[in-house]
Amino acid sequence: MKIAFALGDAAGVSPELAARVMADPAVESGEMIVVGDARVLELGCAQAGIDLDLPRVTADGLSRLPSGSFLLDMGNCNPDDVPLGEASAAGGRASVQNFRTALSIANAGLAELVFFTPFNKHAMRLAQPDYVDEIGFINATIGATRSGREFNVLDEVWNARVTSHIPLRDVADALTTDRIYDSLKLTFEVMESAGFERPRIGVAALNPHAGDGRNFGTEDEDVIAPAVERARAERMPVTGPVPSDTVFVRAIRGEFDAVLTMFHDQGQIAMKLMGFDRGVTLIAGYPFPVVTPAHGTAYDIAGQGRADTGATFNAVHLGRKLAARGTGAIDTTNHDDLRRALPALIGRICAGTDDWS
Amino acid sequence: MKIAFALGDAAGVSPELAARVMADPAVESGEMIVVGDARVLELGCAQAGIDLDLPRVTADGLSRLPSGSFLLDMGNCNPDDVPLGEASAAGGRASVQNFRTALSIANAGLAELVFFTPFNKHAMRLAQPDYVDEIGFINATIGATRSGREFNVLDEVWNARVTSHIPLRDVADALTTDRIYDSLKLTFEVMESAGFERPRIGVAALNPHAGDGRNFGTEDEDVIAPAVERARAERMPVTGPVPSDTVFVRAIRGEFDAVLTMFHDQGQIAMKLMGFDRGVTLIAGYPFPVVTPAHGTAYDIAGQGRADTGATFNAVHLGRKLAARGTGAIDTTNHDDLRRALPALIGRICAGTDDWS
Repeated sequence: MKIAFALGDAAGVSPELAARVMADPAVESGEMIVVGDARVLELGCAQAGIDLDLPRVTADGLSRLPSGSFLLDMGNCNPDDVPLGEASAAGGRASVQNFRTALSIANAGLAELVFFTPFNKHAMRLAQPDYVDEIGFINATIGATRSGREFNVLDEVWNARVTSHIPLRDVADALTTDRIYDSLKLTFEVMESAGFERPRIGVAALNPHAGDGRNFGTEDEDVIAPAVERARAERMPVTGPVPSDTVFVRAIRGEFDAVLTMFHDQGQIAMKLMGFDRGVTLIAGYPFPVVTPAHGTAYDIAGQGRADTGATFNAVHLGRKLAARGTGAIDTTNHDDLRRALPALIGRICAGTDDWS
Repeated sequence: MKIAFALGDAAGVSPELAARVMADPAVESGEMIVVGDARVLELGCAQAGIDLDLPRVTADGLSRLPSGSFLLDMGNCNPDDVPLGEASAAGGRASVQNFRTALSIANAGLAELVFFTPFNKHAMRLAQPDYVDEIGFINATIGATRSGREFNVLDEVWNARVTSHIPLRDVADALTTDRIYDSLKLTFEVMESAGFERPRIGVAALNPHAGDGRNFGTEDEDVIAPAVERARAERMPVTGPVPSDTVFVRAIRGEFDAVLTMFHDQGQIAMKLMGFDRGVTLIAGYPFPVVTPAHGTAYDIAGQGRADTGATFNAVHLGRKLAARGTGAIDTTNHDDLRRALPALIGRICAGTDDWS
């Protein structure tokens, strides 16, 4: 398996986490295509107190690709230009470039999985003002005809949401039975790929007390319930609408494997209280999964060598499992394919964008 | 101090909890006016394995009021008519009558606190279809000119909300700067009465990432922030709007004493995950506080003698503290006042309603 690994924001814990991942014995030989600046990875090694012997190639050295894991040295980020613990255009610009390149490698069939250490959206917007979120960026980068979906995975509980980064006042109108059903079906399929046998999904209600018999809103009965019925008719073990203030309590008691929430904070309030910083963010629905630790750049402890690696290793582990089961269309990638195709791909990226400019 | 204690739904754990409260040595002599049917309290004693020696008076025996705590025997609920573990009109009707009577006693200045064991709203609606929630019922019963507010209190974290039992689609339009400011001020004042010195309040944002700089909605900046500023100008230590998926995490870390949420589930998702069944529901803003355990009737374990009394005793304890500090207009109530005024009050209740019919 090949993993396209984009280095995240150099101002936070990403360099340290990257160094620790690459030094870990569980990372298989030849598995990683690390995309980023060599100086940032060196910084991470220094922060973590790690010696790393990872071959590097630059854009013009791709014809002599090493046989194992390697660093694709983007030369796009001098750590001197990125103040530790601060969002900067320099840090954001390199994050955008690394992410775009890793996505392009996977989209060309040269990696089965994209993994990244934490980005900082604010820094990315300093470099590219129209950057809204990862999903929008992936859609644009790979020209997706259908948008992927974000899953939050914490211990044994998964969370997917029907709507995400929209104003709360727009949520009710954005919900349709089709959209909720599509989310249920995608959640079910992705979780089956992750090894769940007939995953049990609890569907959160929109209104207080699930509308309390139409006293506080009608969407629970008119919009959500029909989607649940349709999924159940197709033999998916789906329950709901369940009042959103009890659905996670029931999930952690073992009643549901996943919770489908109707809007961003309905799930995030619960997941963050449950310790989601230990969890994994998965973006699925593309030919390859994209994974990252759920926590952010942790600017407050950047450079101190004390970042917790748990979520990062969980992300790699979950991503490998999904990629191995083939959520997408990619067959096993081998190094010869990579050696053959990567130079042309990188050439196209360099020609088409300002990366490596 | 006098506490008007309304017996809750006889089909659940309320009878057992009532028996345990009345048998507890921490209940002060002469403190309790228990409002309910003697047979229900007897049932609770049998369920709990408790012998209770509590004087009873009926409507026509009020001229011979005992000097200590007593049961005002409403004769309104034969346990044979209330199937254990089921919502029934008989159980609901008695709950409504007990609650109305206890509120009337406090509103007449004959008790400083109203306490009740769990009601079941569905059962209450079987008896009185227009019963929406406790606040609406209190407003109607005592003819309140200004509605009270519900607080959820769990360990060291308080939660109050600006809107409650309304459809999610109506939340954004229901929020105004004045309304949010009023909630902040009431929260601050009630918590000061409960012994907090300058309580620190975190205000939840409405939109994802608090609107993310107007990318996902404008209410956080335009409606919520001005209310926070106004409260801060009056030297209340208020912070926000804080993204709602981190505000409770920060509260349990000790950063806030209370969280003000914008809508029902924003707070309830968090509080229930944090173990709110151990907590207390307080309704404040009237001349007397109203308290009850946060959990419900627990029909699944009704009659088994194994109900947890923690939340119930927490409710009595918090209510006493608030009543003693005078959140309202009532001075110390003594037994002579009660002896003088109760017969006339009960006469008016009997004449004006179908209670004790």
